[in-house]
Amino acid sequence: MSDFNLHQKLFAEALGTAILLAVVIGSGIMAETISGGNTGVALLGNTLATGAILVVLILMFGPISGAHFNPAVTLAFWLNKDISTAHSLLYIGVQIIAGIAGVWLAHYIFEQELIQTSTHIRHGLPQGVSEALATFALVASILFVVKLRPEAVPYAVGLVITAGYWYTSSTSFANPAVTIARAMSDTFAGIRPADVPLFIAGQIVGAVLAWACYRVFFKSEA
Amino acid sequence: MSDFNLHQKLFAEALGTAILLAVVIGSGIMAETISGGNTGVALLGNTLATGAILVVLILMFGPISGAHFNPAVTLAFWLNKDISTAHSLLYIGVQIIAGIAGVWLAHYIFEQELIQTSTHIRHGLPQGVSEALATFALVASILFVVKLRPEAVPYAVGLVITAGYWYTSSTSFANPAVTIARAMSDTFAGIRPADVPLFIAGQIVGAVLAWACYRVFFKSEA
Amino acid sequence: MSDFNLHQKLFAEALGTAILLAVVIGSGIMAETISGGNTGVALLGNTLATGAILVVLILMFGPISGAHFNPAVTLAFWLNKDISTAHSLLYIGVQIIAGIAGVWLAHYIFEQELIQTSTHIRHGLPQGVSEALATFALVASILFVVKLRPEAVPYAVGLVITAGYWYTSSTSFANPAVTIARAMSDTFAGIRPADVPLFIAGQIVGAVLAWACYRVFFKSEA
Amino acid sequence: MSDFNLHQKLFAEALGTAILLAVVIGSGIMAETISGGNTGVALLGNTLATGAILVVLILMFGPISGAHFNPAVTLAFWLNKDISTAHSLLYIGVQIIAGIAGVWLAHYIFEQELIQTSTHIRHGLPQGVSEALATFALVASILFVVKLRPEAVPYAVGLVITAGYWYTSSTSFANPAVTIARAMSDTFAGIRPADVPLFIAGQIVGAVLAWACYRVFFKSEA
Repeated sequence: MSDFNLHQKLFAEALGTAILLAVVIGSGIMAETISGGNTGVALLGNTLATGAILVVLILMFGPISGAHFNPAVTLAFWLNKDISTAHSLLYIGVQIIAGIAGVWLAHYIFEQELIQTSTHIRHGLPQGVSEALATFALVASILFVVKLRPEAVPYAVGLVITAGYWYTSSTSFANPAVTIARAMSDTFAGIRPADVPLFIAGQIVGAVLAWACYRVFFKSEA
Repeated sequence: MSDFNLHQKLFAEALGTAILLAVVIGSGIMAETISGGNTGVALLGNTLATGAILVVLILMFGPISGAHFNPAVTLAFWLNKDISTAHSLLYIGVQIIAGIAGVWLAHYIFEQELIQTSTHIRHGLPQGVSEALATFALVASILFVVKLRPEAVPYAVGLVITAGYWYTSSTSFANPAVTIARAMSDTFAGIRPADVPLFIAGQIVGAVLAWACYRVFFKSEA
Repeated sequence: MSDFNLHQKLFAEALGTAILLAVVIGSGIMAETISGGNTGVALLGNTLATGAILVVLILMFGPISGAHFNPAVTLAFWLNKDISTAHSLLYIGVQIIAGIAGVWLAHYIFEQELIQTSTHIRHGLPQGVSEALATFALVASILFVVKLRPEAVPYAVGLVITAGYWYTSSTSFANPAVTIARAMSDTFAGIRPADVPLFIAGQIVGAVLAWACYRVFFKSEA
Repeated sequence: MSDFNLHQKLFAEALGTAILLAVVIGSGIMAETISGGNTGVALLGNTLATGAILVVLILMFGPISGAHFNPAVTLAFWLNKDISTAHSLLYIGVQIIAGIAGVWLAHYIFEQELIQTSTHIRHGLPQGVSEALATFALVASILFVVKLRPEAVPYAVGLVITAGYWYTSSTSFANPAVTIARAMSDTFAGIRPADVPLFIAGQIVGAVLAWACYRVFFKSEA
């Protein structure tokens, strides 16, 4: 990451997060439209697109910015002292803004209203725990695989989210910037703004637990 | 594996097996719920999630504990003298307990009763032979690929189970800890407790045959 | 690329582009025929086939011709001064002719009329922007991954198109030769000739933007 | 391949081809049973299983026997003088016998009659050309990728068949041993014995064309 300056890193985070959200929302709209009411078929399409683009974006931007695209990931690297506080805050700000831009881009190409507010209800403690689990799995997979087999990180992240869309009751948002952005889309992938704090709380818990767990194995090297 | 102590290895086995079962059961519940009664669509989702998480978990924990998550795999490595008897028994104990914990976690996030008993009938000798075949393919793929192309093991295991969910009449449990845990879930992925012994017997036969087959090719190196 | 002469490179571009189009059109016909009217199921099959063959073709021909199969990709490498103007024009000519041959081959094996004209309407500015986005993502992924992790390019391209089929309202043609060829097939994957210029305009904009974006990160090395 | 003796190589070909056929037939039976009459869903499951197991089997047996599992592949390596005439004939004999054994194994675990004869009609010149195309793509991908990026061969083969199941009107048998074995199963994946010669003729043509094409690029090295 040392070959690129801060502006380049922030631009990489912006591009990656915007494309990620365009894919999450766009494939959700497409999937719901063409799956003839079979939500299973719709989720297969949404999963395939999201997992695939994550691999691509991390291959592209991993060597530049670390390819976080996710405040929970940035939090874990900050806990691990791999990124400064100032840079972390800039990363998180850029991720949130770019995520919203990505949602609007998806709305535009599918000829929908740009500005929307989701009415998709996702509430209850089990959903919060589901987000904690999903984020734990995501962040732990990143920390462990970065340490042990760095060249496999893009594939690990794409696959952990592929699984996450199916095994969690909350469908693995696992990302505060994604959660905020998806609140602004009243489509398949949306989330009601009132449910956002629960999801983000679960995500923070999951990220901190993942880092704590990482430290059980790699105490002396942080 | 020498850089990590026994407690770390057992913790890795526990984490991996618990997450594996949460994914198997959770994605089974999700798949059945949203597939509109089309079991083919449900199995596609269940397969995708299980295959994907296996790759991730083996990338994460392979260099720590060997990423067995499966008494049949531990048995094969014990036959091959890669792991001591004492450690094998500890591994197997942890796998069984952690698997059950994973099932309960999936039940919790999907707002189901924690304690369940499966009523899913899976019986008859062909199902036992199916488990022997599934476990043979799984264990043989691990032994051969660990020997010949170790960096590809995570992908081989994810893919052999991906295929297994579809080509075996028993849908490839291929793992005694998974079998016991799935007996405790009355959902898509469950198995009636009375059918567990048949499945585990088949799995042991398959694992031993896989090791015997491995020895045909690699006699002098065990 | 220096070990192969121009004729070999052009033959590789011809083979690759013809097979790519045979797969796009053939899997579209198969998918529409067997999916029982569920367009989501059809698109899953069409996506799987297209993404898979792209990985294979780039593994096969990448070291020979660069495996462009796409005038938008050739344009980006020309902007980057990686290929001469004369060779670029030959590449593009071969890609267009071979693409049409691939369409005819698919029509033949599915016992359809060889010569067709699509009636599939795909119009409106959002579809043009969708093609710009799809081509931006494709070309940027190629430029960045060729630079940073060249051995992963085949997987990146297969996956970026896998995602593209689902997240863009235009289903990611992202390739002028593919667009022209698909105008000659009145099937699932077709495009009405009148809509071709909009798509190609979007693709050129996307390719140029991707190259400009690449230059933000790799200014001194072009 | 020099570390293993002929008996080990033949045993590897037998194991691999038997498992391959068990997967092709078994997943076909499973897919047809559970897909609720939607052939598209059934083909997705059949494709996923077949592509996945091919990657696994080639990872396992590639370094031992070359992992042909296919007389058309053995033919191409024989044309290329990579295998002797005597060994080629032994390989082909083992592949045919093991393929039939694999079919019977699938029948057994799905509780079907062991001995069957397919009634699935697959005829007409376009189907023969489809097999030539499918085999051309398979054999060419093997020859080129073995030469240029040997570590990627397992993935290339899995993916070329994944695509083949969808883009060819014959669903890519692409293998004479598979064709003979599938004639002995009156299930989803079967083929009427009367149609076998057309398929095998197409496969031989495709394999020879693939080798000829390979020689255009790698003349001096055979």
